[in-house]
Amino acid sequence: MKKPNDILKSINPLKLAKKVSRQKELVGKAPGSLIYTGSIVDKPVEISIIRYGEDYFDEFILKNVSEANLEKEIDHISWINVSGIHDVDIVKTIGDDFNLHSLLLEDILNIEQRPKVEVYGENIVVFFKMLYLTDGVLEIEPISLVLGPNYIISFQEKEGDIFDNIRDRIRNGNGKIRKRKSDYLMFALMDAVVDNYFIVMEDIAEKLELLEDRLFEETDNSLLFELQMYRKQIVSMRRSIYPLREVVNKLNRTEFERISDDTERFFRDLYDHTIQIIETIETFKETVSSLKDVYMTGVSNRMNEIMKVLTLIATIFIPITFVAGVYGMNFEYMPELSWKYGYESAWLLMVSMSLAMIVYFKKKKWL
Amino acid sequence: MKKPNDILKSINPLKLAKKVSRQKELVGKAPGSLIYTGSIVDKPVEISIIRYGEDYFDEFILKNVSEANLEKEIDHISWINVSGIHDVDIVKTIGDDFNLHSLLLEDILNIEQRPKVEVYGENIVVFFKMLYLTDGVLEIEPISLVLGPNYIISFQEKEGDIFDNIRDRIRNGNGKIRKRKSDYLMFALMDAVVDNYFIVMEDIAEKLELLEDRLFEETDNSLLFELQMYRKQIVSMRRSIYPLREVVNKLNRTEFERISDDTERFFRDLYDHTIQIIETIETFKETVSSLKDVYMTGVSNRMNEIMKVLTLIATIFIPITFVAGVYGMNFEYMPELSWKYGYESAWLLMVSMSLAMIVYFKKKKWL
Amino acid sequence: MKKPNDILKSINPLKLAKKVSRQKELVGKAPGSLIYTGSIVDKPVEISIIRYGEDYFDEFILKNVSEANLEKEIDHISWINVSGIHDVDIVKTIGDDFNLHSLLLEDILNIEQRPKVEVYGENIVVFFKMLYLTDGVLEIEPISLVLGPNYIISFQEKEGDIFDNIRDRIRNGNGKIRKRKSDYLMFALMDAVVDNYFIVMEDIAEKLELLEDRLFEETDNSLLFELQMYRKQIVSMRRSIYPLREVVNKLNRTEFERISDDTERFFRDLYDHTIQIIETIETFKETVSSLKDVYMTGVSNRMNEIMKVLTLIATIFIPITFVAGVYGMNFEYMPELSWKYGYESAWLLMVSMSLAMIVYFKKKKWL
Amino acid sequence: MKKPNDILKSINPLKLAKKVSRQKELVGKAPGSLIYTGSIVDKPVEISIIRYGEDYFDEFILKNVSEANLEKEIDHISWINVSGIHDVDIVKTIGDDFNLHSLLLEDILNIEQRPKVEVYGENIVVFFKMLYLTDGVLEIEPISLVLGPNYIISFQEKEGDIFDNIRDRIRNGNGKIRKRKSDYLMFALMDAVVDNYFIVMEDIAEKLELLEDRLFEETDNSLLFELQMYRKQIVSMRRSIYPLREVVNKLNRTEFERISDDTERFFRDLYDHTIQIIETIETFKETVSSLKDVYMTGVSNRMNEIMKVLTLIATIFIPITFVAGVYGMNFEYMPELSWKYGYESAWLLMVSMSLAMIVYFKKKKWL
Amino acid sequence: MKKPNDILKSINPLKLAKKVSRQKELVGKAPGSLIYTGSIVDKPVEISIIRYGEDYFDEFILKNVSEANLEKEIDHISWINVSGIHDVDIVKTIGDDFNLHSLLLEDILNIEQRPKVEVYGENIVVFFKMLYLTDGVLEIEPISLVLGPNYIISFQEKEGDIFDNIRDRIRNGNGKIRKRKSDYLMFALMDAVVDNYFIVMEDIAEKLELLEDRLFEETDNSLLFELQMYRKQIVSMRRSIYPLREVVNKLNRTEFERISDDTERFFRDLYDHTIQIIETIETFKETVSSLKDVYMTGVSNRMNEIMKVLTLIATIFIPITFVAGVYGMNFEYMPELSWKYGYESAWLLMVSMSLAMIVYFKKKKWL
Repeated sequence: MKKPNDILKSINPLKLAKKVSRQKELVGKAPGSLIYTGSIVDKPVEISIIRYGEDYFDEFILKNVSEANLEKEIDHISWINVSGIHDVDIVKTIGDDFNLHSLLLEDILNIEQRPKVEVYGENIVVFFKMLYLTDGVLEIEPISLVLGPNYIISFQEKEGDIFDNIRDRIRNGNGKIRKRKSDYLMFALMDAVVDNYFIVMEDIAEKLELLEDRLFEETDNSLLFELQMYRKQIVSMRRSIYPLREVVNKLNRTEFERISDDTERFFRDLYDHTIQIIETIETFKETVSSLKDVYMTGVSNRMNEIMKVLTLIATIFIPITFVAGVYGMNFEYMPELSWKYGYESAWLLMVSMSLAMIVYFKKKKWL
Repeated sequence: MKKPNDILKSINPLKLAKKVSRQKELVGKAPGSLIYTGSIVDKPVEISIIRYGEDYFDEFILKNVSEANLEKEIDHISWINVSGIHDVDIVKTIGDDFNLHSLLLEDILNIEQRPKVEVYGENIVVFFKMLYLTDGVLEIEPISLVLGPNYIISFQEKEGDIFDNIRDRIRNGNGKIRKRKSDYLMFALMDAVVDNYFIVMEDIAEKLELLEDRLFEETDNSLLFELQMYRKQIVSMRRSIYPLREVVNKLNRTEFERISDDTERFFRDLYDHTIQIIETIETFKETVSSLKDVYMTGVSNRMNEIMKVLTLIATIFIPITFVAGVYGMNFEYMPELSWKYGYESAWLLMVSMSLAMIVYFKKKKWL
Repeated sequence: MKKPNDILKSINPLKLAKKVSRQKELVGKAPGSLIYTGSIVDKPVEISIIRYGEDYFDEFILKNVSEANLEKEIDHISWINVSGIHDVDIVKTIGDDFNLHSLLLEDILNIEQRPKVEVYGENIVVFFKMLYLTDGVLEIEPISLVLGPNYIISFQEKEGDIFDNIRDRIRNGNGKIRKRKSDYLMFALMDAVVDNYFIVMEDIAEKLELLEDRLFEETDNSLLFELQMYRKQIVSMRRSIYPLREVVNKLNRTEFERISDDTERFFRDLYDHTIQIIETIETFKETVSSLKDVYMTGVSNRMNEIMKVLTLIATIFIPITFVAGVYGMNFEYMPELSWKYGYESAWLLMVSMSLAMIVYFKKKKWL
Repeated sequence: MKKPNDILKSINPLKLAKKVSRQKELVGKAPGSLIYTGSIVDKPVEISIIRYGEDYFDEFILKNVSEANLEKEIDHISWINVSGIHDVDIVKTIGDDFNLHSLLLEDILNIEQRPKVEVYGENIVVFFKMLYLTDGVLEIEPISLVLGPNYIISFQEKEGDIFDNIRDRIRNGNGKIRKRKSDYLMFALMDAVVDNYFIVMEDIAEKLELLEDRLFEETDNSLLFELQMYRKQIVSMRRSIYPLREVVNKLNRTEFERISDDTERFFRDLYDHTIQIIETIETFKETVSSLKDVYMTGVSNRMNEIMKVLTLIATIFIPITFVAGVYGMNFEYMPELSWKYGYESAWLLMVSMSLAMIVYFKKKKWL
Repeated sequence: MKKPNDILKSINPLKLAKKVSRQKELVGKAPGSLIYTGSIVDKPVEISIIRYGEDYFDEFILKNVSEANLEKEIDHISWINVSGIHDVDIVKTIGDDFNLHSLLLEDILNIEQRPKVEVYGENIVVFFKMLYLTDGVLEIEPISLVLGPNYIISFQEKEGDIFDNIRDRIRNGNGKIRKRKSDYLMFALMDAVVDNYFIVMEDIAEKLELLEDRLFEETDNSLLFELQMYRKQIVSMRRSIYPLREVVNKLNRTEFERISDDTERFFRDLYDHTIQIIETIETFKETVSSLKDVYMTGVSNRMNEIMKVLTLIATIFIPITFVAGVYGMNFEYMPELSWKYGYESAWLLMVSMSLAMIVYFKKKKWL
């Protein structure tokens, strides 16, 4: 078996050891110890604030972390966006300012945190995942939203351009978003992330179709590695998205006071989309497993075909070699040897035998 | 492995990429944005209205969309049927007239919307799927019904002739349909769609039986592709119909005021039919998987058979070729060579050996 | 692959297409339309009535359908047994007499009706299935029981002798049956059908054991077809019996007024038997799948055995054929050729080589 | 495929036909008919009574069945143990004396009765199974306990020595058993049976380990039959023990008045043990299935190994046989034939070719 | 099949027989009998006590078992840690001192006790498992915590260094642990054990990745044994950890008075971690099964490759051996034999034939 090429190797999305290992750093620490479990990158943290009301809009980058605290007192709705949770001190400062529980901060810093929704005092906190597929590599980034009375704090390591649309809608103020409360903003942010899942799904769907076409033609085992890789990606996605279903379901039932009846309907819509994504993932899973069958059948058919042809060649030559052997015998008295057309007759015999066999094999559809 | 022929290819029902891609257009839009997610066709939208009461019947095609609005005020029951949801403006106008929520309109335009039932204000809205099987191609069309106090609005892209029976029953007025309310009309429409599932099922059942017969005779791998195709069709149907079970179950429990006790019994009946359809789909699924086993066993048996026969031929000739080889040796003193019937004896020996082997193989049932 | 013989073919119990097709006749009809979905046979309908009380017994065949109606007014318990539901008019007349809902009549006429229990006004109606296994062919006949205050109406197409025991017990009046109400009669009828399942089960169990014995000896592929057939029969039985569990469970919980506490205990007993039947079916399913494994292993072992023996023969002859070839070479100077016992030595060499190989193969346990 | 040897055959634990057939005798009888469904043996029934209180102990064998009845009136606790339920009359007499329902007696006599707990009037009745493994044959014996106010009646066909410990504890009076009520005795009896499961489990565990060791060395197909047998035994055990879990769970929840809070804790403990047994059975199931994989892999590896070696031999000899064939040609002008060391050169060539191939195969690790 | 090397054998984690056998010693004993079910080691029992309050800390090794009893009366929180439960007398003495139920003590001594939480009088008792992976051998040690009003008693056979961190945190008094009650200590101890699971997980994850790399290169069947071993380890871990989920879930719901609302939040956090561990185990399970597929595919590909090459060699030589055979015939009149370049032409023919075949095979990508 050939080894998969390096590209395939490099995009292996299931680095189990690495994942668990990051988690390990928390071991032995008191609960609530603040440690970022992702790989530390040398990237400056950016804290941006967007403040808005029906007739108001303001947007700026924070210079001093503790300024974020001021947003609590303001009448307008504030969206405090923290990009870069590797800087534990900044997260801790914000946590202290907004009076966030140490366990909550621990979860925010844990890049392996499962999607969940929790109530901490007056805040609702939602943890979920953003998916990116860059050059075939699936990246899974955690995101956490803290919903307060008039603010939302969003924490993530890197954000991409998922929220750009929402920023535009707030800036332009032509949608409903400026007229609504912070609970609707939470919905909008979650909706943007779920919408982004569709883009990732389409990417994978296209690749699976290309792969299916190739599977009908090639039996190279790099295809198997590619399939393995998609299987792993799909398993990872499933783990990241599946619990979101329960999270959104909780949000659309009237469990939380802070979420208005009107916004609940939107969460119901989001729930629908989440189910649709999950069903698509299930279809992908089934597709990958059926493509594996196609591959396996292809490999086995090809091998059977080769062995059949080779065996047929042998089978045609073995009997006529026997005939040649017979007339190679050294008996003193072998009448055929002295026939005038003995040699030609022998050839005739051998050619006839071959043809008979070929005709027979053809008739049996073995050739 | 041969490629499937083009017909098979063309009827591939699981165009994953395309499906997800249509969905993608909604991404980044504010929730409630009205975008038709199907492929736009150049077909005029047709809005027909049927008005009826116990002693009244009226039927006409709408020229001006906003006329539909008038139906709200009328005493009789109105069925407003919109064929062609690709024209977003028309849907939006009707939505505004009947005061439908923007999220509801978004769902109506989403051709991938899962079957569900929702209450919006005074309306009950049901989303489900129509299935068509034309020339072996499975088409899945979404349909949504908005049930108001005295009207039903049905939205779909293309309708086929599924509802013709109901129109006739209303026109003729000889059934119970004219005596009942709009909730019964909703039942009748859903019942017609579910009845149509039975026709699709029968079509597939017949094809599966034909395929089963062929599987006993051929091992061509186009059969495998056909099986794959049926598997995909069945998976698609399952996804489209399975959630309907919960929808109808909700309707037959006394959850909704607008649905009378009497009509509930009919929904209970519909529930029964839905279960029966789902059980048939499960049977199909199992049948396809067992047919795949039959195919696999057939292929492997055939290959084994070929290899066995070829190997048997080789096995019979190898020993007698050895005999010929022996008498082809050039030793100076080989008594048999100068026997009078040496050559004949050699032949006798070789023929006997062959026969012995053939008899042995026959006895062992290898031939 | 050989085709299964005709007997096997003829007893194929899963005529999917036919089943669905009968159902199709209902499509497009208004709900409650009365159409018999089975295959119409030219058999006269028989309506028999048994009337009994603790000290009373009467039994007669009905001449005029509407006479059945009289039974409603009578003090004694009446069992009205309709054999032959293909005559829709008769069913309709009885339905009108006893005031049965049209949906209920539709279900009675639907031979694919799933087992269920429903309350229609003052009646409890139970739908379930009778199984017959005649000459290895599994037949599934629907039966429906309508339980009124002092009567039971049983509908079926053909009855066999399942209820003969109950008739005898009523006639003789020596059991408890004459002392009890119509709810106990319903139990007794259902119990008789479930008892009959045990007979069918035993039949299949015996055949599976015979098959198991044959599987250890033969690898004929007609065995595989037989297995497929049993698999299908078991799937059909499972579908017919599984929902009965829920039906009986509902009857033994105090849900229905008409069923007395005393009779409930009997239904609890019936529930136990139903579970036992279902567990047996599950065991059958597992057995069939494990027998398939046995068959597959058998086929593959046999093929391996053949290929091994054939290859061994070739392997023994190829080296000695080489030796013969060597001494068939025409070199001018080949000392062995002029040895006195050259020829004999060559034979000795060849025999020794063969023996060495045979010994080696024996030691390796390849022979 | 060889047939399994007779020992294996004889211990086949899943005599489906026989099992169902015994059940069949009940068919057509009125419910509550008393028929022993096991195989009738010619063994005298033994009814023993143990009477005890905190300071009292008495033990005797009953001569007259109806004496058992007296135990109802006595102050002390009585344990009436019926060994041999094939004598239906005796069971019936006791049933009449203690006022037991006919359905209850039917269940007691049904050797296929599933584990369950039921309340009949003032009695709690528990049905479960005893397992014995004698000489590798798994026997499953039903046992039923009727718990009255101050007595327990235990019914079984044969008892073994499972309860000897309890008898000793009552006799010696040094445990808690003499101080407690009949509900504790019921617990003690059930506990003894569950404890006995552990012994059976260990027996099977040991055999599975021995089998695992042999599977690494042999590929005889009798191993496969042994595995099949264990699979069947484990399936049987699972069916016998699984429902007990629910039974014990019911007993440890405060559902039954007759069971004191104190004894409930003991039932909780028993529940724990039952779960442990069930988990062990699941592990066995998985182990058997993984051992089957080991066997399959072993067989296939062995066959591959043989075919590889045989093919290698052929592959080495075929090219050198060709060389010999070349120098056996009869061309008039073949220079090599008249070389002085022509023959030796030919040998050299052939040996070199063989060695080259052997080296190549070794390098490729094919040898 | 080669046997696995001894190292692999020795680390077999599923000694079923041994496990069940230890359990067996309890059979026949009265419930509540105190028997240590692990393998008895000759290790002195160590009972250490740590007493602490917000401003108080004390730590000592107990000389006299009954001193432990004093801790009940003390104001500070006491953690009594018993290392070595094989000494039943000591456990019994402590049990008597603290008034622990005999069934509870039995469970503490049962090394196969499933994770569970129970309330005994004023105590909450938690049973769970510690995992160690030393030199690839997975060891599973039971641990039980008895939570009283102001004390915790922890029982285990050997402890390792899992709790050293907690001891340090208590000693240093700089965390929250000294300020909280005994319920928080229970959380801390459980948290330490769960944190330790992550370390074990990472160890296994790393090994699985190494194994995956090797599976792409080797097909040695020791790899299969290694896979089997991991499968067994994962199954064992799953069994040990899975029930903990329910235990922690119970603790984080407000079911227990003794656990304060504040500590509950920590248990919720612990629940999260437990879920994460369980999900990782599921991923491992899937990974092992997919690695097995990779291995199987590898083995089968390799074998196919070998057979293909061998068959190709044979196929190339068989036709040209036939040619040599033809010119070895002894016909009197064979024109080619007397050609001047007859021999050379024959060679040319044979070489051309070989080349033609090689080219053909190359074109077909069989070489």
